[in-house]
Amino acid sequence: MTSWVPIPVDSDFSLQNLPYGVFSTTADPIPRIGVAIGNHVLDLKALAQEQIFSDIKFDASALGETTLNTYAGFGQNVHGEIRGRLQELLAEDSQLHHLLRDNQERRQKCLLPMKDVIMHLPVTVGDFTDFFVGLHHANNCADFLKPGADITQVLPSFWDVPSGFHGRSSSVVVSGTPIHRPKGQTRVDGKAVSGACQTLDFEVEFAMVIGRASQMGTAVGVDQAEDHIFGFVLLNDWSARDFQKNEPAAPFTCKNFATSISPWIVPFEALQPYRASPIKANRPLSDYLVQKDTKSIFEVPIRATLEGMYIVADCNTKCMVFSFAQMIAHHTRGGCPLRPGDIMATGTMSGPSKSEEGCFLELSRPYGENPYEMTAEGSSGCQIRRSYLEDGDIVEFSAQIRTKDGLGNVGFGLCRGWVLPAN
Amino acid sequence: MTSWVPIPVDSDFSLQNLPYGVFSTTADPIPRIGVAIGNHVLDLKALAQEQIFSDIKFDASALGETTLNTYAGFGQNVHGEIRGRLQELLAEDSQLHHLLRDNQERRQKCLLPMKDVIMHLPVTVGDFTDFFVGLHHANNCADFLKPGADITQVLPSFWDVPSGFHGRSSSVVVSGTPIHRPKGQTRVDGKAVSGACQTLDFEVEFAMVIGRASQMGTAVGVDQAEDHIFGFVLLNDWSARDFQKNEPAAPFTCKNFATSISPWIVPFEALQPYRASPIKANRPLSDYLVQKDTKSIFEVPIRATLEGMYIVADCNTKCMVFSFAQMIAHHTRGGCPLRPGDIMATGTMSGPSKSEEGCFLELSRPYGENPYEMTAEGSSGCQIRRSYLEDGDIVEFSAQIRTKDGLGNVGFGLCRGWVLPAN
Repeated sequence: MTSWVPIPVDSDFSLQNLPYGVFSTTADPIPRIGVAIGNHVLDLKALAQEQIFSDIKFDASALGETTLNTYAGFGQNVHGEIRGRLQELLAEDSQLHHLLRDNQERRQKCLLPMKDVIMHLPVTVGDFTDFFVGLHHANNCADFLKPGADITQVLPSFWDVPSGFHGRSSSVVVSGTPIHRPKGQTRVDGKAVSGACQTLDFEVEFAMVIGRASQMGTAVGVDQAEDHIFGFVLLNDWSARDFQKNEPAAPFTCKNFATSISPWIVPFEALQPYRASPIKANRPLSDYLVQKDTKSIFEVPIRATLEGMYIVADCNTKCMVFSFAQMIAHHTRGGCPLRPGDIMATGTMSGPSKSEEGCFLELSRPYGENPYEMTAEGSSGCQIRRSYLEDGDIVEFSAQIRTKDGLGNVGFGLCRGWVLPAN
Repeated sequence: MTSWVPIPVDSDFSLQNLPYGVFSTTADPIPRIGVAIGNHVLDLKALAQEQIFSDIKFDASALGETTLNTYAGFGQNVHGEIRGRLQELLAEDSQLHHLLRDNQERRQKCLLPMKDVIMHLPVTVGDFTDFFVGLHHANNCADFLKPGADITQVLPSFWDVPSGFHGRSSSVVVSGTPIHRPKGQTRVDGKAVSGACQTLDFEVEFAMVIGRASQMGTAVGVDQAEDHIFGFVLLNDWSARDFQKNEPAAPFTCKNFATSISPWIVPFEALQPYRASPIKANRPLSDYLVQKDTKSIFEVPIRATLEGMYIVADCNTKCMVFSFAQMIAHHTRGGCPLRPGDIMATGTMSGPSKSEEGCFLELSRPYGENPYEMTAEGSSGCQIRRSYLEDGDIVEFSAQIRTKDGLGNVGFGLCRGWVLPAN
């Protein structure tokens, strides 16, 4: 399936992707909903005003809102119909060219060059939950806490439930937002010491954005759980390792200063061709976590770079030991309600080898004593070494699934953060 | 200061209180903002429509909204002016009787019997943070984790920072909402066992509701922090102790199924006469936590009862080791932004003696082995014993400050929850 909109070979945004975002322009600073296609953004608010979706049964005024929350809550049937209509509008081979391609005025109004748009946080995040379901990251963390230990010696329930904790939603920001080095408190020789973070870190994570809500008091069954997924983003869970020492139970100030997400939410449907199986538990699961579909996770390669050129890590979401459906089933088991726009992340997606470790905590271990050497992409051969992040560093995550079966690329755009000095 | 509105001697809602809430009626089911006075609710939306606040500089349309978030964000100067106007309207001795008392039509429209209103969640909770600043609760918890230990052996930073963790905001509900016993997973002899919670507990907590927002990247100074407080509520942090065993790091499913708050938010100003000093740290604090005002907490007695008659615990907020201002200063130290409607709770407010312990975890310790005997209020002498909560139990918190200086009572209304069987 190809589009009449030019799509560069290395673009994240093929006709198979059509990720959702919220954007504005200098001419019209009110944030609005769009989808990415090649180097363009298609304005869904404008398309809705032009009655392009008038025969689809849904409340089109949701496409006039400044976040995707209401639209996300409509559920996958509506999302599928809208996506189908957009693919028809944009396909090379289509009966609907008169609606957009051949209507110059409408095309200029609705199809905007991506270079001219400013991206905003795509959803108001009701709650942000961070899970801890990456096997290799978990074992590397266990080794810190108890040298030589595997994760079950530190967290006995690791293989029994998707472990998680609640994060801060007010500090979830869209890619491009600068991140000030946080101040806080750590312990040195048992004494409290306060000041700017000395060991600032990133974490390569993958996250789902919740679509359809669930009711308080009602558990979502694991085989129905995927119905509640709107889409996926890349997520950088910035972490202050020194402050984390002061917070041995739950991460608090060590993580609540900032969390960055990619501007584009890749629809649930766009990831279907890339299903994979999670790493299996070596013991039976509780009934409520037994999922019929064994291809329950997705294989998404995520690359982290520094300064736009040095390769820090090549991670992959295939290291998960629980699926997104299992996360939802566990999260709601006691009746905790889901709201559209909730974000649930995987935790760090490290792979088994050094070059796949998704944070400096692992890359420069122990405790930054072994600065990690990174080589620039391309042929320059330039290298830098880091134990942790320095002021001025630019951290970028990208993830592009390229396939051979004639499908276009599926990517998320950059999840980018620039480290500024402490305020 | 007395009111022309009749105020029963035992009422929570004197003219010195005037707490904010959100209510509806069967005649008008749209939630709207009101304040409590005696056995009545004064409809602020209706008063605003009648131009009662038209000479006060603020956006009165905020009083027409269905939650208090926008109004809370206006800050204490506006809240003080509105409060002053309401006190003038309602005072026995006033120049403004023509505006309400003597205008029968308006009075009937704006002053509604409390028995006719339905209370709603007063704010949309952006983020819910639970702190752990009650000394006696902390030491009792430490004793569980390491028999004979004090809290610093388990949490070395206890006296250095207000320790806290992020909670779930989607399951914060208003008093009166029934609570289903949650299902989840625990460990027995090292093996995962799933099912309904066997050890359901309450926690007596006190919480502030944030008013004025703060910007991301900006720390709120401890001596400016109180400017960000809108008011206070009672809070029941329902807890599944068996599931908590599976979550040794951060509380997750053991607490995210439900959190109840009182329907009325007592304004910051109403608590000013009841200031007290926190329990002092025995070591110097980091500069950013050193607060000029030593009377930095409030003395609020909170009683928990079962079935509306058995006294479970008499707690008091004077057991705090850090103030609300210090919580805010620490929470925002790294730049984490505050939003109007955020809730920050104290953790369990147990006192030093048995009858002051604010949860069954403490009352029936260890592990429920010593069921706690409770006696009914009044002269009946009836008694019941509990290790944990049973289906059908009704848990109520109330807190009424009665003073001798001619000030009226200040209370929060009931924070009430009814335990239903697991779904």
